[in-house]
Amino acid sequence: MNKVTFKFDNAPDVEAFANDGEKLLDVAKKANVVIDAPCSGNGSCGKCIVKVVKGTVESSQTRHMTETEYRNGFRLACNSKVTEDVTVKVPDIASAFKKKMKISDLSSPEEIKIFKNTQERIAAAGIKYENDFRIIELELAEPTIDDTMPDNERLSRAIQAESGCDKIKISYNIMRKLPQVLRESNWHVKVLISDVYDHIIVNDVIPSDQWLHVAGLAVDIGTTTVSAVIFDMMDGSFLARGAMGNGQIRYGADVINRIIEATKEGGSKRLKDAVLKETINPLIREMCASAGISRDFIYRMCVAGNTTMNHLFAGIYAEPIRMEPYIPEFFQTERLRAGDVGVAINPDAEIIMCPNIGSYVGGDITAGVLANTMWANPEMTLFVDLGTNGEIVFGNSDFLMSCACSAGPAFEGGDISCGMRAMDGAIESITIDEETLEPTYNVIGDPGEKPVGICGSGIIDIISELFRVGAINPKGKFIREGKRIRHDEDGMGSYVIAFQEESGTIKDVELNEVDIDNFIRAKGAIFSGIRTLLASLDFDVDMIDKLVVAGGIGSGINMANAINIGMFPKIPLEKYEYIGNSSLSGAYTALFSTEAEEKVYELGRSMTYIELSTTPGYMDEFVAACFLPHTDASLFA
Amino acid sequence: MNKVTFKFDNAPDVEAFANDGEKLLDVAKKANVVIDAPCSGNGSCGKCIVKVVKGTVESSQTRHMTETEYRNGFRLACNSKVTEDVTVKVPDIASAFKKKMKISDLSSPEEIKIFKNTQERIAAAGIKYENDFRIIELELAEPTIDDTMPDNERLSRAIQAESGCDKIKISYNIMRKLPQVLRESNWHVKVLISDVYDHIIVNDVIPSDQWLHVAGLAVDIGTTTVSAVIFDMMDGSFLARGAMGNGQIRYGADVINRIIEATKEGGSKRLKDAVLKETINPLIREMCASAGISRDFIYRMCVAGNTTMNHLFAGIYAEPIRMEPYIPEFFQTERLRAGDVGVAINPDAEIIMCPNIGSYVGGDITAGVLANTMWANPEMTLFVDLGTNGEIVFGNSDFLMSCACSAGPAFEGGDISCGMRAMDGAIESITIDEETLEPTYNVIGDPGEKPVGICGSGIIDIISELFRVGAINPKGKFIREGKRIRHDEDGMGSYVIAFQEESGTIKDVELNEVDIDNFIRAKGAIFSGIRTLLASLDFDVDMIDKLVVAGGIGSGINMANAINIGMFPKIPLEKYEYIGNSSLSGAYTALFSTEAEEKVYELGRSMTYIELSTTPGYMDEFVAACFLPHTDASLFA
Repeated sequence: MNKVTFKFDNAPDVEAFANDGEKLLDVAKKANVVIDAPCSGNGSCGKCIVKVVKGTVESSQTRHMTETEYRNGFRLACNSKVTEDVTVKVPDIASAFKKKMKISDLSSPEEIKIFKNTQERIAAAGIKYENDFRIIELELAEPTIDDTMPDNERLSRAIQAESGCDKIKISYNIMRKLPQVLRESNWHVKVLISDVYDHIIVNDVIPSDQWLHVAGLAVDIGTTTVSAVIFDMMDGSFLARGAMGNGQIRYGADVINRIIEATKEGGSKRLKDAVLKETINPLIREMCASAGISRDFIYRMCVAGNTTMNHLFAGIYAEPIRMEPYIPEFFQTERLRAGDVGVAINPDAEIIMCPNIGSYVGGDITAGVLANTMWANPEMTLFVDLGTNGEIVFGNSDFLMSCACSAGPAFEGGDISCGMRAMDGAIESITIDEETLEPTYNVIGDPGEKPVGICGSGIIDIISELFRVGAINPKGKFIREGKRIRHDEDGMGSYVIAFQEESGTIKDVELNEVDIDNFIRAKGAIFSGIRTLLASLDFDVDMIDKLVVAGGIGSGINMANAINIGMFPKIPLEKYEYIGNSSLSGAYTALFSTEAEEKVYELGRSMTYIELSTTPGYMDEFVAACFLPHTDASLFA
Repeated sequence: MNKVTFKFDNAPDVEAFANDGEKLLDVAKKANVVIDAPCSGNGSCGKCIVKVVKGTVESSQTRHMTETEYRNGFRLACNSKVTEDVTVKVPDIASAFKKKMKISDLSSPEEIKIFKNTQERIAAAGIKYENDFRIIELELAEPTIDDTMPDNERLSRAIQAESGCDKIKISYNIMRKLPQVLRESNWHVKVLISDVYDHIIVNDVIPSDQWLHVAGLAVDIGTTTVSAVIFDMMDGSFLARGAMGNGQIRYGADVINRIIEATKEGGSKRLKDAVLKETINPLIREMCASAGISRDFIYRMCVAGNTTMNHLFAGIYAEPIRMEPYIPEFFQTERLRAGDVGVAINPDAEIIMCPNIGSYVGGDITAGVLANTMWANPEMTLFVDLGTNGEIVFGNSDFLMSCACSAGPAFEGGDISCGMRAMDGAIESITIDEETLEPTYNVIGDPGEKPVGICGSGIIDIISELFRVGAINPKGKFIREGKRIRHDEDGMGSYVIAFQEESGTIKDVELNEVDIDNFIRAKGAIFSGIRTLLASLDFDVDMIDKLVVAGGIGSGINMANAINIGMFPKIPLEKYEYIGNSSLSGAYTALFSTEAEEKVYELGRSMTYIELSTTPGYMDEFVAACFLPHTDASLFA
């Protein structure tokens, strides 16, 4: 047996024993040492980096680290076998865990503002903020030998007397609890009902002296991150908010690889389990604990995800989505039932799926469009959702047209060596001194939070600033020298934003030329997508009245910088607006408001989808956009 | 280890090893020796009798055998511990197994006649023999890059074009199989649809070159026996017929003990499992194998059982049924879903429950009334269902009134030492020579089938004949001597119908005074029930136009003998009719015909229920009826 010592900055050492050849990541797991590994240890994400400070491990260098880093003892925990006693430094447990799952009972003021803004927009668009749930309190006549009506009829008649409706539906689960609830409560109960078409559904029956929470669960199933909010279906107030990496990431960072995996033997169940049992259900459990409610109090759910995520969540065969002619099983579907799908909420809860409109523009975008209300206004609005890939919608109250760009995961920190989502520890904005090249940055989190990585908005700033101060050329290669600019053995340049000792992690937080290149291709995909979509309608960027940005890129996004690097078109800054995670706020809206739910279905039916990859000229546009800011500099003059 | 040798009449010996103290019944189970034990070995039914022919077992005498029997080596297998090498004789495996589960691909001519008669009655009553299932064949347009409609919409539109209905519901299970079925079939499919109110439900989609069976499953859940039939929902023809002892019997022979058990910790699940997982599901499996169809082809089910059986089948808390004021959870319920309840058929299949009308008159009786069509005719009909207990309905097209009698399980052979259901090996009818007291009897089964027990109709005949020839007095005590009449040490008399060597079992087939006493109380309960029900309406037996008998008592029932022993009123024999298992034929009818389903719900709402136990005079009537034929002989003069 070999002894492994894990060292932290802010916590005592942890010691563990390892067999010869045992993987360091597995040893950490056994010892309850949390090492962030979004790909679950298959070597694809490069995030499980540790630093060997004593002894050695058997490990090869990977594309995720430079030769210098390797020489300095950095290793991927998933790629390292223990062969002798060894001491490794790992990022602080707490912050690593926070990255894994972030739960809050109330959102940050900023998030609350985003939801509030959505509510105001929706209200302004004429959508009523109300749903069909109602709580009624009933005092039933206790049965006697002369009044032997069965329990279900006794309840139905009382509801009928209260509501005037004579079609009352009591589910099998309610039937099973009814006799005991009625007798325990001395026939005095609270009943949660909802009106659906011509009948009333009984969603729950509880003793009248108990508190009945009526909660709704809105979930944005992102390819990279799953975000959710639990709220009160009666008044719309938040009960809990959470986010967690999508467990499917171990099967690939993009939807195509996930579909391929899902099509293999047993794959459909594996992918469904990864997002449901390993991600959504644990998240629900944590959020319910934080909100102090039972999961059975969640009576309805709304899901917004891209087309592939929607299919894999429901365990539906997705292979035809990736094969020409790219056909999903569904755009819109009937409400599903939580118990059937396996979501750990009230088993009778119905699941609303925000509709897909194409193979690569899904429910996250219809939800986003619902939330941004471009469908209600005459202004020409361009809506850009920056998640894994990016989707674009253009139009107004007369028409809506959409497309998807193959931008990859860079906006969410994927494919970027020090990239991360916009959460605690992420550098979200930065300026660089023209003379000294010294950075000044903001880190998300409590005051004094140390940087552990860079989120999308931070990357935009760094590239824009490096370009502005002349440190990099239009191709993203370093052309200035300085204390913070360095080159490795192969000549690859990088810029250090925070040296290890200034950071909250075990290595320097930096951006290298490969990162910059990845990001330039991502922003090029967005810009060329915008150009192609507008061109297909004979529109010019000047005709955009409003440009709305959404997604996990971070609220710190500096639109001027995004324009400077050629990601967004050069239009007046006041036309820009960042609206946060509109997929989630749209799902919340569709769930809370019955009219909004109808609206999102209508949007699904009325929006048009164009396939960029088969649109003439797109490829040329893309190649031209892979420069800073663009090969055609006049576009940004 | 001790060696146990099992000996049979018609099969080679089976040898097994047993630990000291191991129960003989458990040893038999391990050795795959089938010993009939309806109570699963708790000592309550007395049916697992074996004869020790070499060695001894540790066992005590029980109320289920006489001292002579005990002395002759008879033991209950459930009550015997192996302590040395022993050889035991057990009833023939095959017939024991037949008793346990009887499956046939087609019913006996007699059963077919019973179903045919039901069909004719129902048709004469003006009920249409049709349901809402329809098979349509669709050739869908294959998607192209210019026609990228998703699968579910493509299917819905095609159904809409065919049916004119634009509300198409596709279940979650169909969604999950749709993409593959459409592509494997080259877009040429058979679709099973049903019209429900204003929409169409898609029940299944399969490639058009595959055979689509549309089967229905009707189940009579008796307290003692579960009977079922699988049939073609398109033409009504039988695919399989089966029956099996209700696995709940180990928790008590009557509904009260079952409710008590179900109310204990975890009891609800135990009782549900016993009837569903251990009885109905295995029966379905066997019947599907016999019919050569997959269980997924069973698209709808109808259940008829008494109120308690209906509750326990669905796992619904039943305690209030047995406690004053005797309140069930439901009389009528929405259709349940097979997947929710756990029935091993197509998970989307809906379950129709024939409605209960009181705590002790349930869906088996509404189904029976549906089948006997007394509701459609002006003749005053008395309907008597002889199962475990007995239920009585009186009325015509103007009114229907019902009650339940506490008759116990004697009509199905329960509480009778050699009693059994009307199946192969049962003595179903008998005459006794006035001089010699020698019996002449018929045994159910193939020609030459040897008697193993006596079913209800046989018991009626024996008692009637013994009374007619003066062998027993009005109290059921033996008053003649003879070769076949004997008395045990305590003076208890019995009449041997078949000595062991003439029988198909290991001991004499006989009826003793305790059996006769049990049966007299059972018949007394029925007769007094009839009298009390009629009296409550100021009716006399003369006003009965028709007396319809149903139940597992056996088609061999001799009505004249039933009158002779004072079980039924003395009215002209041509007014009597036996209609078999009307609970099952009613369930079949309600399942096959949508109009009949509506009718059975209407019957549930319109029938009246009176509680005999609280009806003045009933107890006096009962006591008076516990004689042969009655204390008031003028009633049978």
